[in-house]
Amino acid sequence: MPAPLRLGLAGLGTVGVGVIKIIQQHAAMIEMRAGRPIMITAVSARDPSKDRGVDLSGYAWESDPVALAMRDDVDVFVEVMGGHEGAAKAATEAALTAGKDVVTANKALLAHSGQDLAETAESLGRVIRFEAAVAGGIPVIKALTEGLAGNGMRRVMGVMNGTCNYILTRMESSGLPYDHVFEEARQLGYLEADPQLDVGGIDAGHKLSLLASIAFGTKVSFDAVELEGIGDVSIDDIRRAGDMGYRIKLLGVAQMTGRGLEQRMTPCLVPSDSPLGQLQGGTNMVVLEGDAVGQIVLRGPGAGEGPTASAVMGDVIDIARGLRLPTFGQPATTLADPVAARSAAPAAWYLRMTLQDKPGALAKIATALGEAGVSINRMRQYGHPGGDAPVLIVTHKATRDDMMHAIASFAATGVLVGNPVAIRIEEV
Amino acid sequence: MPAPLRLGLAGLGTVGVGVIKIIQQHAAMIEMRAGRPIMITAVSARDPSKDRGVDLSGYAWESDPVALAMRDDVDVFVEVMGGHEGAAKAATEAALTAGKDVVTANKALLAHSGQDLAETAESLGRVIRFEAAVAGGIPVIKALTEGLAGNGMRRVMGVMNGTCNYILTRMESSGLPYDHVFEEARQLGYLEADPQLDVGGIDAGHKLSLLASIAFGTKVSFDAVELEGIGDVSIDDIRRAGDMGYRIKLLGVAQMTGRGLEQRMTPCLVPSDSPLGQLQGGTNMVVLEGDAVGQIVLRGPGAGEGPTASAVMGDVIDIARGLRLPTFGQPATTLADPVAARSAAPAAWYLRMTLQDKPGALAKIATALGEAGVSINRMRQYGHPGGDAPVLIVTHKATRDDMMHAIASFAATGVLVGNPVAIRIEEV
Repeated sequence: MPAPLRLGLAGLGTVGVGVIKIIQQHAAMIEMRAGRPIMITAVSARDPSKDRGVDLSGYAWESDPVALAMRDDVDVFVEVMGGHEGAAKAATEAALTAGKDVVTANKALLAHSGQDLAETAESLGRVIRFEAAVAGGIPVIKALTEGLAGNGMRRVMGVMNGTCNYILTRMESSGLPYDHVFEEARQLGYLEADPQLDVGGIDAGHKLSLLASIAFGTKVSFDAVELEGIGDVSIDDIRRAGDMGYRIKLLGVAQMTGRGLEQRMTPCLVPSDSPLGQLQGGTNMVVLEGDAVGQIVLRGPGAGEGPTASAVMGDVIDIARGLRLPTFGQPATTLADPVAARSAAPAAWYLRMTLQDKPGALAKIATALGEAGVSINRMRQYGHPGGDAPVLIVTHKATRDDMMHAIASFAATGVLVGNPVAIRIEEV
Repeated sequence: MPAPLRLGLAGLGTVGVGVIKIIQQHAAMIEMRAGRPIMITAVSARDPSKDRGVDLSGYAWESDPVALAMRDDVDVFVEVMGGHEGAAKAATEAALTAGKDVVTANKALLAHSGQDLAETAESLGRVIRFEAAVAGGIPVIKALTEGLAGNGMRRVMGVMNGTCNYILTRMESSGLPYDHVFEEARQLGYLEADPQLDVGGIDAGHKLSLLASIAFGTKVSFDAVELEGIGDVSIDDIRRAGDMGYRIKLLGVAQMTGRGLEQRMTPCLVPSDSPLGQLQGGTNMVVLEGDAVGQIVLRGPGAGEGPTASAVMGDVIDIARGLRLPTFGQPATTLADPVAARSAAPAAWYLRMTLQDKPGALAKIATALGEAGVSINRMRQYGHPGGDAPVLIVTHKATRDDMMHAIASFAATGVLVGNPVAIRIEEV
């Protein structure tokens, strides 16, 4: 009988407990599929006395994850602690140096240190797998790195933070403003301890940077992700976008443009009847576009005990079966330094503004847009009995620079009330 | 430098040409990802003189695919010829016996001979990969066999014949009857030479039987698939189902029930606003449900040169990288003989019938349903100025046997005009 694959599990939160449950419930099935038994030999967490609802009695306990990572009876270090510095990083490095493979759910760690860790792993003949780090239970790292490996990738998109999508969906369905729904989400426990990780787009940006590296053969460059959270999305814009046939999503987009690699994680409009537009609540969706395959859409739970543990186990079973890949799909030393192109790709834009009730106001805005090289596709002016006039404009494609230029020139028209809102419309 | 992986490509139709294009266009990228060069050494097809729009001059030509499969300069036999007997089968067996790995797009061959071929391959230490055989460019075999390997699978569903989905979508959008749209599809070249492979559900049934084997660890049992094509789907039912919030899809469902493995490829109603209900035209969708991950939905092109070649290349690159798995995810000799359970799982049903304009007609039908143990969830009777009355019923969950029993008992009521239509409503 082949030797068992022995796991050291660092982190006994939601995901760690999920991994234990799968291994305890499905030992025979997993052995059949993996070709060898998979067992946990040791675990590590902060509090050894806490009742986690699973039987830990068969596992050695290490209070220090670094010690866990270096144990002789561990083949694979499974890191589900989180945090991009400190113990998680130290233990991951220690595991690689000690000759262990690593399976991690830690998007922040890889977004910040993925290149170094990948180079370390590959120089030592070790693998790092991270399916659980991106889009929870959706096997998107595998689809991109392996299934679509014959494609030159054109674009990768995703709604990859369930909390943000929950908030935006709930704002639309309830008509409640952002601050109210944010507070609801906090009370429901949907938010990270630092909510900016969610609503500021940081968590989703981490994930996007990992997908971009694989898709385009470039070093992970999270710092080059254009980040904009959902805090400024208003209920007015959600309603008005709906009137025009769109929904607002915190959408990540990575694509290689003529000017370099563009990575954005920003609120975007997408058609309400598209798969991305239809996505409700905490579900995640990733769209992969390749030159041979066209468009593949993957949808599933982006977080939670079972889905994330499922992704961890997929990686562990891959290792048990002998699959050994470079972390980002090609040797880390061959990954290119990407030239960061911020908002290079042109797009249609949604513009919402309020105009003073003056003759010729709309003409002045239209003229300013035209002079900035932005042409109007659709326009809607709402009724305004004696007051100021809300106006919606959907433009033809324009670069962000041209759009911002146009908006800057609106001020000189003297017909605006307040500031205009501009949101990119992503073609999906 | 690692040795190149050498392919023998049997079949130079759409898919074969697509594979050649990818290899010729992306040689450097593929080598980077695969860790070694991938090259075609020899090809085989019926007509050596035909212009296929690609340069074949670098490849040896074999008129006999069996000879191709056995060439010393071939490591992987790529079978994109089609046909479940004859040359495709002989060449695949010859390749395995000669020590080659096999990548195939041939769903019919595997649905009929998958168990034998897998046993042969595994006894010889060879692998058979078949991503291209199911749902075209969607990496669903990989997602199920690898990504979700930690899950006990609960249900697998799919719309996996683009031609059928095109016909049903077109019937709905145009209001044209089946025969008309079928003829359109034929003229557009969407149909197989034997159209029953498409519209009879056979092609999609082949694919379902392969997914079921992997999901439930059972031998491929295509003969146990309950097959019903779309030929009897009427424009009336498409309209009436729409009125009740449903769309009709040729939907494959495999699930393990208390009575055994249920495999169905039949027209079903799904909610219009579900991902399956939203699926338009020739696109495919597969839904994978596991006990840890919950529900994963994969959507993409189910056929065509690029998508299918993308799937072939994913398998080829896997082999180049050293991934070696049993054909159906666990050793073929351990696959169970499934007990076939036909329509064991209860479901809600859509019933459409026409009643004579007689007092108490509807009550008689309701009574007959009740006596068969089928309860009514929703009912709609359409206006009938002086004539017969169209009636729609959505039932609560009932087994197919109970439903058929109820329908058989309608005859005795003497109030029916013509035959009632019953279509299963799948919970998605």
